[in-house]
Amino acid sequence: MMDVFGSPGTLSGLLLRIGQSACAAGSIGVMVTAQGFSLFTAFCYLIASMGLQVLWSFGLACLDIYALRKKRDLQNPLLVSLFVVGDWVTAILSLAASCASAGIVMLYARDMDLCKGAMISICRSFEVSVGLAFITWSLVTASSHVMFWILAST
Amino acid sequence: MMDVFGSPGTLSGLLLRIGQSACAAGSIGVMVTAQGFSLFTAFCYLIASMGLQVLWSFGLACLDIYALRKKRDLQNPLLVSLFVVGDWVTAILSLAASCASAGIVMLYARDMDLCKGAMISICRSFEVSVGLAFITWSLVTASSHVMFWILAST
Repeated sequence: MMDVFGSPGTLSGLLLRIGQSACAAGSIGVMVTAQGFSLFTAFCYLIASMGLQVLWSFGLACLDIYALRKKRDLQNPLLVSLFVVGDWVTAILSLAASCASAGIVMLYARDMDLCKGAMISICRSFEVSVGLAFITWSLVTASSHVMFWILAST
Repeated sequence: MMDVFGSPGTLSGLLLRIGQSACAAGSIGVMVTAQGFSLFTAFCYLIASMGLQVLWSFGLACLDIYALRKKRDLQNPLLVSLFVVGDWVTAILSLAASCASAGIVMLYARDMDLCKGAMISICRSFEVSVGLAFITWSLVTASSHVMFWILAST
């Protein structure tokens, strides 16, 4: 069993999964409080992508807790392949959703300079939500690199 | 020397690099013909990102040609590490730029329904440019996975 930071079935792996779930859930929570978010396809896609991320990361966090309690080794090639594919798919979807939303936020806040007056709090919510989505993506990328490294090394 | 499809110093690797350069150059070419693209930060970022991609991929294509002509092996750990880092950085920048631009295109074409009349040809240019950027990203992702696999297997 490789003892790389963030490997499945270890405490660091569990903390990484909890961090991913918390940031993704935070991103959804902040976005749904912003008035009129549903008018933008990119923001709806961000919520869908972060929802999928919460399901995936929370599921793997539960698996890590089970492995830690029962002292099971999760590093068999079949399971790690599954983690690699899942992490890659969710990481790419998270980055795509974050960037599409960041493009819109940049258009409103910088190119059109619309974040003034009553719009300030809505823009702030969009920015915080996109920021949390980017943090989620960076944590999932860390996991996916560790998984790919373990798979290629076995 | 590993004979994986797309490895550095092989014909498949060279073709992959030429494909990346051509698509990135095409994406820049189509975008700069669209009137008013410079008003959007995301589209300017797309051009910068695709410009970097052309430089990187074209440089590596030249290196592949040199290796093929002189029958040199480019698969030493130091060189492959450099390719991995470069490919990852350019792949992430390409995806980020493509998605940010796609977010804007979606906002204009779908959410605001502005692609009508005189705007149709401009919207079409934006769409083609973003499409080519996505193709570039998928080709760079293929290269970066091959490089990471070679690095982890050595």
